[in-house]
Amino acid sequence: MRQATAADPIAILSGSGGLPPVVARAAAAAGHRPVVIAIEGEADPAAFGAARVHSLRFGEIGRLFRTLAEEGCRRAVFIGGIARRPDIAALAPDLGALKLLPRVLSLLHGGDDRLLAGVAAIFEERGIRLVSPIENAPDLALAAGVATRRKPTPQDMEDAEAALAAARAIGALDIGQAAVAVEGRVVALEAAEGTDGMIARIAELRDKRRIPKAGGVLAKCMKPRQDPRLDLPTIGPATARNIKAAGLAGIAAEAGRTLVAGRAETIGALDAAGLFLLGVKP
Amino acid sequence: MRQATAADPIAILSGSGGLPPVVARAAAAAGHRPVVIAIEGEADPAAFGAARVHSLRFGEIGRLFRTLAEEGCRRAVFIGGIARRPDIAALAPDLGALKLLPRVLSLLHGGDDRLLAGVAAIFEERGIRLVSPIENAPDLALAAGVATRRKPTPQDMEDAEAALAAARAIGALDIGQAAVAVEGRVVALEAAEGTDGMIARIAELRDKRRIPKAGGVLAKCMKPRQDPRLDLPTIGPATARNIKAAGLAGIAAEAGRTLVAGRAETIGALDAAGLFLLGVKP
Repeated sequence: MRQATAADPIAILSGSGGLPPVVARAAAAAGHRPVVIAIEGEADPAAFGAARVHSLRFGEIGRLFRTLAEEGCRRAVFIGGIARRPDIAALAPDLGALKLLPRVLSLLHGGDDRLLAGVAAIFEERGIRLVSPIENAPDLALAAGVATRRKPTPQDMEDAEAALAAARAIGALDIGQAAVAVEGRVVALEAAEGTDGMIARIAELRDKRRIPKAGGVLAKCMKPRQDPRLDLPTIGPATARNIKAAGLAGIAAEAGRTLVAGRAETIGALDAAGLFLLGVKP
Repeated sequence: MRQATAADPIAILSGSGGLPPVVARAAAAAGHRPVVIAIEGEADPAAFGAARVHSLRFGEIGRLFRTLAEEGCRRAVFIGGIARRPDIAALAPDLGALKLLPRVLSLLHGGDDRLLAGVAAIFEERGIRLVSPIENAPDLALAAGVATRRKPTPQDMEDAEAALAAARAIGALDIGQAAVAVEGRVVALEAAEGTDGMIARIAELRDKRRIPKAGGVLAKCMKPRQDPRLDLPTIGPATARNIKAAGLAGIAAEAGRTLVAGRAETIGALDAAGLFLLGVKP
């Protein structure tokens, strides 16, 4: 069996957000040939510059595996968000999808972990190895310690610990990856609304005087039983904007298993907003 | 020491919502004399009919204990919501409050459990025994089994179990009492937004197609370490309206330690909306 080499093509299965183009560029910079599979309605095909891009709809599973075979991809990275759980009626399944449909339907009926792990297994059976975006480009991972000019205060550290404990607890139940604590009290937990939706709630809670006017920390961490190749916690310039609008002081996330979506842009946005980013040992 | 009898006055310390008037009426019906302490900005003094009502501001702790002494109250029920955490600047503390201020400030810096337990201790030291609204009027408690015409389906039972497990997990961390599961997946967890705020989110998640269009169960349960005299989970006609608007199928809550805010009105509202209410063994 032929070994994958640095010159090999690598499929970048791309959902929404700023991270997929960053990962594709990082793969190219590391000597790989990125082949972008842009999920229609999620990824922006124009965002990938010179990389090769195929736009596929959610149900086109047969076409997906044909495309990967034609491109010679034996490795794939899953990256970016899937904002919408696919509506079965809108799937427009092709023949490849129809064969898998009972299995996919069963996967949709469960938490994100189960869905993604099941999809990963379908790829592996077809000889395509899933790799972590970090394995592919280690520079994308958050390092331990404070990455920003601003350092966390003792109150920030107390909030970080409370929020991390809560995020780990809900992660253990395969519910969410994130939590916010203000003045030592956990005030928001992430579930289906996603991290951005949860952060938006903080400003509402302040308006309603249900929580103190300022301060607090966002914690993000990998679910304890999560496959690190799939759905890693991510932080990017949008996170910086969102937590600034929510009046939070900073972010605590796990070093080595949190993706930073463009280090210069992200740290630059955090520094410009006067926020901290802390990488903690998992 | 004089024993409390059924004829004794009982203080009803009343926050927001429909439950305080229900509890005051239930106390009167059980032969007690309710003395309502309406917290300004939270309770509606006009909602208590013929009962004696004193309106007090949050900081008037000295006045509160003088009023309870004048009325001869040796027992008190805490009931209703506190929508806003008191803003220290707006407290307008009287002398009694100033003496307690360091202790109250320390209590505000923590979860709801700690806050309420600390306030309870302040009452007990002054000879006022806190009693559960259920102890005072057992009819207010949810019974085991299905209380509505609609019965839960097997899918509803799966959702109820997932949501109850999540609600217990966040309760163990003193974060919230409620969770929602749809098709077996936990999609919302309560923190500082409160149960109504969390339920309102469900409709938004459906609009954004992040969760299935219909179905799902709200679970409410007492925090494992919570004092049962304080802040019991409650269900009322407003809960029925809210979960109907959110497209949920019903509610699962703990029998014997969930307050039903007006049995006839609540079950009537649930039946009219075609929803179920299930009392599960804690």
